[in-house]
Amino acid sequence: MQLYKAEVPSPVPDKLTPRLADSAKILWAVYAGITALEVGFLLGGGMSFFDSLAHAFTTMPTGGFSPKNTSIAYYNSAYIDYVISFFMLLAGINFALYYQLLRGKPLAFWRDTEFRFFMILIGIFTLLITFNTYGSVYETIELSFRYAFFQVISILTTTGYGTADYEIFPGLSHIILFSCMFIGASAGSTGGGMKCSRIIVGFKYCYRELFKLIHPRSVAQIKINSNVVTDDVLRSIMGFLGLYIGLFVICSILLGAMGIDMITSFAAVASCIGNIGPGFGTVGPTENFAHLPAMAKWLLLWCMLLGRLEIYTIIILLVPEFWKK
Amino acid sequence: MQLYKAEVPSPVPDKLTPRLADSAKILWAVYAGITALEVGFLLGGGMSFFDSLAHAFTTMPTGGFSPKNTSIAYYNSAYIDYVISFFMLLAGINFALYYQLLRGKPLAFWRDTEFRFFMILIGIFTLLITFNTYGSVYETIELSFRYAFFQVISILTTTGYGTADYEIFPGLSHIILFSCMFIGASAGSTGGGMKCSRIIVGFKYCYRELFKLIHPRSVAQIKINSNVVTDDVLRSIMGFLGLYIGLFVICSILLGAMGIDMITSFAAVASCIGNIGPGFGTVGPTENFAHLPAMAKWLLLWCMLLGRLEIYTIIILLVPEFWKK
Repeated sequence: MQLYKAEVPSPVPDKLTPRLADSAKILWAVYAGITALEVGFLLGGGMSFFDSLAHAFTTMPTGGFSPKNTSIAYYNSAYIDYVISFFMLLAGINFALYYQLLRGKPLAFWRDTEFRFFMILIGIFTLLITFNTYGSVYETIELSFRYAFFQVISILTTTGYGTADYEIFPGLSHIILFSCMFIGASAGSTGGGMKCSRIIVGFKYCYRELFKLIHPRSVAQIKINSNVVTDDVLRSIMGFLGLYIGLFVICSILLGAMGIDMITSFAAVASCIGNIGPGFGTVGPTENFAHLPAMAKWLLLWCMLLGRLEIYTIIILLVPEFWKK
Repeated sequence: MQLYKAEVPSPVPDKLTPRLADSAKILWAVYAGITALEVGFLLGGGMSFFDSLAHAFTTMPTGGFSPKNTSIAYYNSAYIDYVISFFMLLAGINFALYYQLLRGKPLAFWRDTEFRFFMILIGIFTLLITFNTYGSVYETIELSFRYAFFQVISILTTTGYGTADYEIFPGLSHIILFSCMFIGASAGSTGGGMKCSRIIVGFKYCYRELFKLIHPRSVAQIKINSNVVTDDVLRSIMGFLGLYIGLFVICSILLGAMGIDMITSFAAVASCIGNIGPGFGTVGPTENFAHLPAMAKWLLLWCMLLGRLEIYTIIILLVPEFWKK
């Protein structure tokens, strides 16, 4: 029970339904429905049935595996790029919101702080990368926008598909995509990373400290969607963010000790803890992790597990207290 | 008063003396004494009086300015390297501990968690860089050790002197030195960065969350030197660490938007918030910040102020609440 609570320390907007079996059925239906929809759209774009299925099956879980070595870039099709961008985005949204939609409450999306934050991030980052690559990398604004939109969503939702070699983008795009590796998707989605809701809580936590300097006697509570975040959840989230960054630093040093350069080490660890796929340096979007030494693969394997199981569940195995009695 | 509290949210091991004037006198004496000692040692190594004074005057405040363009590398002397390493290290220690020493309590050093942490970090990082550069960059172990020791202390204490172009070191050394830029020196020293005591509290904060998963009903308090860290101080420290990282990311994106590459942006911001000096990329130890666009200098100027004044005091100016009434 404690581990389960640790795994979902993010403030979920609404409990789905009182009965777990009903919730599970609804989630299954939503998941299957969106997957089927994506298969349909991809077939409509001229993709083979097998490829459509393979892509839909790895978009929705934000897994990011493609049957093509060059990933989505293989198709070189604006239609397919936009379809997959759209479905990656859907997979990065809290699934509880789809349930609200089915109950006839479409406004639940706009009322959800995390959803707004997620969409604003995608908007700002896409625009920045569009203008950053237009002229310097791509000759048309459509191409810049399409690849920017795709890469931002692919990395933010931790899917990891590729349409462009973002390593040839200018510095600003690198910094943004590198930051996206940490931020991740929404809580209650299939994406990884720190998750938007935790980033929001982190922001609010810091802002509260500033507010307290001005109003020292105030009892400022942190709210998400007008629900108060309890102190327990707050501590759990700040602890999670701290562990995430701490692990990132320690694992990067360990990778460095295996003879891997700084950028590759940082990006490989960030990409693996976030369950993304591509990184920077020698593990960029057109390369893979095959050339890394075996020991590095063992380390990154644990990073992937740590990230996927939200850190606490794995790292607790290293606490001696856990093994007592 | 609130701002003052924000500026020293780190748990100081002991109040110096009940009367502020006495404390100030003691600190002045310690500071002047160590400075004089360094001047003496440098003169003894054949450095001119002016240079000895200039270096002592920029070692003790961990300022890191040298009258020589090539910094300490100019002298190419093992004696001078070790003398300056030693005094940078002294400047990175909590000055309250010197007061304890004067009171005849030399054991205060070893009883201080932050001091032990600081020394252990220096030891581990120096050894790792020594073995990382021995053979690949330097031919003798003495040279590797001396430059590793100097660079680790110079960056960890945020002094920023240089004896070696660490950009030609292998990846592991880069990752370690980059991490040192964030960690910083001890609370109550003249150094900048996040400060060791806050890192320790951050570690303990995360560990407590793990401990609570195993013993959910426990009331685990965080202690430094057997003093309980109150919830207020704890929140302030976690908020500080969050703001530090948040500012680092936002300022790096802004630098990137000015056309600066990722590594240089990351390193320039980390180096300026930490008040260090050298970074990586085009602001490495053998380069300077002169080539950056004017706007980047304005931004980094604020980063230096933010870091030096411990973030809260500057960032509070951006909170609308502060300007009300």
